[in-house]
Amino acid sequence: MGKYTELQREAYEANMQIPAQHLALYTWGNVSAFDKAAGVFAIKPSGVPYPELTPESMVIVDLEGNVVEGKLRPSSDTPTHAVIYSEFAVSDGAKIGGIIHTHSTYAVSWAQAVKAVPLFGTTHADHIQTEVPCTPYLSREAVQNDYEKETGNLIVSHFRSLKLNPYEVNMVLVGGHGPFAWGATADKAVYNAAVLEEVSHMAMNTLQINPSQQPLPDYIINKHYMRKHGPNAYYGQK
Amino acid sequence: MGKYTELQREAYEANMQIPAQHLALYTWGNVSAFDKAAGVFAIKPSGVPYPELTPESMVIVDLEGNVVEGKLRPSSDTPTHAVIYSEFAVSDGAKIGGIIHTHSTYAVSWAQAVKAVPLFGTTHADHIQTEVPCTPYLSREAVQNDYEKETGNLIVSHFRSLKLNPYEVNMVLVGGHGPFAWGATADKAVYNAAVLEEVSHMAMNTLQINPSQQPLPDYIINKHYMRKHGPNAYYGQK
Amino acid sequence: MGKYTELQREAYEANMQIPAQHLALYTWGNVSAFDKAAGVFAIKPSGVPYPELTPESMVIVDLEGNVVEGKLRPSSDTPTHAVIYSEFAVSDGAKIGGIIHTHSTYAVSWAQAVKAVPLFGTTHADHIQTEVPCTPYLSREAVQNDYEKETGNLIVSHFRSLKLNPYEVNMVLVGGHGPFAWGATADKAVYNAAVLEEVSHMAMNTLQINPSQQPLPDYIINKHYMRKHGPNAYYGQK
Amino acid sequence: MGKYTELQREAYEANMQIPAQHLALYTWGNVSAFDKAAGVFAIKPSGVPYPELTPESMVIVDLEGNVVEGKLRPSSDTPTHAVIYSEFAVSDGAKIGGIIHTHSTYAVSWAQAVKAVPLFGTTHADHIQTEVPCTPYLSREAVQNDYEKETGNLIVSHFRSLKLNPYEVNMVLVGGHGPFAWGATADKAVYNAAVLEEVSHMAMNTLQINPSQQPLPDYIINKHYMRKHGPNAYYGQK
Repeated sequence: MGKYTELQREAYEANMQIPAQHLALYTWGNVSAFDKAAGVFAIKPSGVPYPELTPESMVIVDLEGNVVEGKLRPSSDTPTHAVIYSEFAVSDGAKIGGIIHTHSTYAVSWAQAVKAVPLFGTTHADHIQTEVPCTPYLSREAVQNDYEKETGNLIVSHFRSLKLNPYEVNMVLVGGHGPFAWGATADKAVYNAAVLEEVSHMAMNTLQINPSQQPLPDYIINKHYMRKHGPNAYYGQK
Repeated sequence: MGKYTELQREAYEANMQIPAQHLALYTWGNVSAFDKAAGVFAIKPSGVPYPELTPESMVIVDLEGNVVEGKLRPSSDTPTHAVIYSEFAVSDGAKIGGIIHTHSTYAVSWAQAVKAVPLFGTTHADHIQTEVPCTPYLSREAVQNDYEKETGNLIVSHFRSLKLNPYEVNMVLVGGHGPFAWGATADKAVYNAAVLEEVSHMAMNTLQINPSQQPLPDYIINKHYMRKHGPNAYYGQK
Repeated sequence: MGKYTELQREAYEANMQIPAQHLALYTWGNVSAFDKAAGVFAIKPSGVPYPELTPESMVIVDLEGNVVEGKLRPSSDTPTHAVIYSEFAVSDGAKIGGIIHTHSTYAVSWAQAVKAVPLFGTTHADHIQTEVPCTPYLSREAVQNDYEKETGNLIVSHFRSLKLNPYEVNMVLVGGHGPFAWGATADKAVYNAAVLEEVSHMAMNTLQINPSQQPLPDYIINKHYMRKHGPNAYYGQK
Repeated sequence: MGKYTELQREAYEANMQIPAQHLALYTWGNVSAFDKAAGVFAIKPSGVPYPELTPESMVIVDLEGNVVEGKLRPSSDTPTHAVIYSEFAVSDGAKIGGIIHTHSTYAVSWAQAVKAVPLFGTTHADHIQTEVPCTPYLSREAVQNDYEKETGNLIVSHFRSLKLNPYEVNMVLVGGHGPFAWGATADKAVYNAAVLEEVSHMAMNTLQINPSQQPLPDYIINKHYMRKHGPNAYYGQK
């Protein structure tokens, strides 16, 4: 039995939620689970269909993207996960224990339009207090240099330029590509990706019904977020 | 065996219809069942996933929002339910035995656009004779005062200002938030929420096909409503 | 064992296809099966949920709309079915053995927009050679006189004014209401309702992609229809 | 046991993926599997519902469209498949072992709008480097001459006029009709049809969110395609 059995199981179960929650077709998504103390994460192997995954097939990778354990190639998006853990979880100290990347239909549609998802309602405000940020396209140099790592760098620099707190804003669209989300656990990362897909769909509909719709007023945004996430949160059980 | 076993069972079965009818993701919806004689209602506990619910987990609450029986925290929307029962069922005497709140996709999209759902066809007129009302945003004062209770107050005052009969118009959108619906039983409340979701989807499509579409003529609206709900209704079995 | 056991079974099985093909929520649809020689049809009882239906519960009705056999009230749309059988199957001699009425989402959306569904592609032309006709709203007089019978009359008069052959054009939208479809059997009527729902969805999308899209050229329409329905049809097995 | 048992099994399994992946209603789609050495392909029989298919029911046809083995009539689209195999697989030498034709909702919607699907994001670029080409309508002469064969000819001439490589661009829309896709195996052809349906949906949404959206920059397109398909591809297992 491996050293990272529990981490692999967490990553495996979260990956199996991708088809269950209809967040991607075929193999187009991946989740990782992070062990901050050990400095490694478990991630889906590249290109393997979900029904063929097992907990043992999850690849253990360190923050430089080197495979520490596992016989399969890790997801091609592994360097993006590594950068997000390094910068947001280690450097910034945000409580991030899981990352997900999907190609879910409506989130990708906004990413392809290279537009942040406006905050129109409480379904959105219950989870994050800002629009869902969308990075610009990667530059030609970044793409030709080290594409997946630069995707992570772009996410990080976009958050820093907007002064976004990655623990509070746990989802992002990469322009022309699609969504990444994260959370305190791999399971919560999947949950946040499902939230993002639903609010992306609702926001598109909202603009269809009223093309000049303005965002929700700040005082409602704050209230909804605080009742679920603030120091006096009263949503859920104690 | 508790005093409210039957009421809890009714609330439980209605809550389980939320995922079955695809009216909300995860825990984003709640139903209550009201016992007018006892002055209490049974409601979903806050933040508990549907598959973990049991009849016994339904919390019994009075019309001031105080927990009368149950170990779990009731839904954070409990004060909204309490106001609607107090004002519509008790004060106005409308036959309301159940209330539902969901975040269903198309109903929320209209709520986020802060627009009433126009009455374009008989699918809608079979159930209510008016557009589905949509309240404005809550005021800053109301949000900061007692958010969920004020949500109930806003619904009630909106109905009164429009002179809507809450027994006949059994659904509403809260601007920037989402739908509430009610009915003679908790089960019928769920049914009305499913009606609202479907007519919200159809109305959005209708405006896409014809952006200047006018509402259905009154004489068709009246006919459809009366054949199902009037004194000489002839829809369904006797 | 009743005289109409086989007819009831045909109607029952076709009605059970309504939820299976997602053509209506709850009880919002009905199918009948017609025995031309006997001058009667079997139809769904009014307001009974699909899971509670049995073959025996199908009500036998004559062409004046009188119940010939059965303990339950027939569908409230029974007079519409009766008129269509009387006029199209008996008077015009079209081979119509089944009729369906649904509230399927996209077909209703076009009906609510009071617009015929344009013939944009071969998916449509494989089934009918014209746009899907849409009647205007019923007049006030017709609604107040005998609503369901007048709905049938409106469909018939609309077909006659457009010189449409009801055997070839086996589907219609009633303005502000929704779709009716028919076919040589009850089962084929359901098939045609599913076709109508799909081409309604595709046509709405097509106009979204290209708002000025023109109909398919006539020579392609004719070819597609004839290869499936003409004297030298070569689609399907002999 | 027939000579083409394995080819029939491959075609059968791929055809059964059409309903499983929601790529067509009823019988509206067909897949063939090609044996280049033998110069024959196995294809779905015409008009037979998927649940009634068996491996043995797959019809063996040569590149002139003559039935070599099988009791049933082959799909009416057989001559289109034959032309694509003859021209792309035999003449051009592209590795094509399977072809699919469907009436999937969003791909048909673009075909009905007679518009190529723009390349807006990496979901699309992961599979092909160009927009999804859409042929114009067939000419009157072609339709009246030999419709299905001319459909194949139109696809081939459209690819040649655009200088598209049919091994790299493995999907096409026929204007006013719908999608064809192909791949190294019948199974991969189905996969490509599912990709086409998903990117068609995403592209329609993208234009709804931003009607003036421009295509993804070339340098991102190339990167995504090469990481999956280039000589140094690093997606998937070795």
